[in-house]
Amino acid sequence: MRFALFTFILLLSASLGNSAEPLNSATADVVQEPHSQSFVVRPIGHVEKTEDCTRIVLAKEYEPGLLGLDGYSHLLMFWWFDKNDTPQKRSILQVHPMGNRENPLTGVFATRSPVRPNLIALTLCKIVAVKGNVVEIESTDAFDGTPVLDIKPFIPGYDSTEEASVPKWLVEGRKKRRQQAK
Amino acid sequence: MRFALFTFILLLSASLGNSAEPLNSATADVVQEPHSQSFVVRPIGHVEKTEDCTRIVLAKEYEPGLLGLDGYSHLLMFWWFDKNDTPQKRSILQVHPMGNRENPLTGVFATRSPVRPNLIALTLCKIVAVKGNVVEIESTDAFDGTPVLDIKPFIPGYDSTEEASVPKWLVEGRKKRRQQAK
Repeated sequence: MRFALFTFILLLSASLGNSAEPLNSATADVVQEPHSQSFVVRPIGHVEKTEDCTRIVLAKEYEPGLLGLDGYSHLLMFWWFDKNDTPQKRSILQVHPMGNRENPLTGVFATRSPVRPNLIALTLCKIVAVKGNVVEIESTDAFDGTPVLDIKPFIPGYDSTEEASVPKWLVEGRKKRRQQAK
Repeated sequence: MRFALFTFILLLSASLGNSAEPLNSATADVVQEPHSQSFVVRPIGHVEKTEDCTRIVLAKEYEPGLLGLDGYSHLLMFWWFDKNDTPQKRSILQVHPMGNRENPLTGVFATRSPVRPNLIALTLCKIVAVKGNVVEIESTDAFDGTPVLDIKPFIPGYDSTEEASVPKWLVEGRKKRRQQAK
């Protein structure tokens, strides 16, 4: 059971995050009248990936904001799908999840698609170490150089539930990938 | 154990989210040189709360983005702490969590504080129904009228882990509140 869950997570991590192109931009619904209200977000840092190490490097002035983060085992990293920051990609409202036409056409708010009106991405990361303005994490699906917008501690029970369910196609897809991986 | 977890969630929900004023703005570290790079986010909708019902109402043009969301039991709602959108509040980097001076001074990236450089908030919500451009949810700590930036489906194993740990003060505070609630 544990192995199955682990495989599921691995496959999801590999497929959910960063496929830069939506499969069906041709079928996209284009937003005609975007809201006039807007807010500005600025990177607090960026992702650094080397062969040995994955790190969130904050701008030096934000270092005080990390005080106490080492008391948590996991963080939520909020980042920006910066490779998709075009009006066209931000107007796509439906995709085939994970770039697979076998998956049903789905609204972007029902997927983790990297094309969506606001390009906010979220990844749960295991904290390895916090030193100065740098947080070493176990891994992330974000690319090297990706702008980071926020970090929050992961709090079980507030950020998670034992009662969650997902669609059949997601469960079936997982089984299929597990069989293919054997 | 289940009751304890439920109480913990309730108390956290009540205390984590929306206390508009940080306790120690006087001790705040002010960011001197904000990053020049910036991104624009626009509300896709807003929260509507009545006595009977809590709903996420999307702008009509975003309705296609909800296709398939009803296959999930829970969603992650990304919203904007719009009541705190001032340069002063966005420059605060340390607070006493939950507005309680007994909690250690903590960096905002190690808290769910509603004051932080980018005012992105995240709440896990149970889906009640999806109809047209409206998602009825069980509850949220966001106020009525709060701008919503994004919705993502909650995917167990990708968005959660069974191995997470939190600081002692958070666990102790929870015990204390449970005793007071008796």
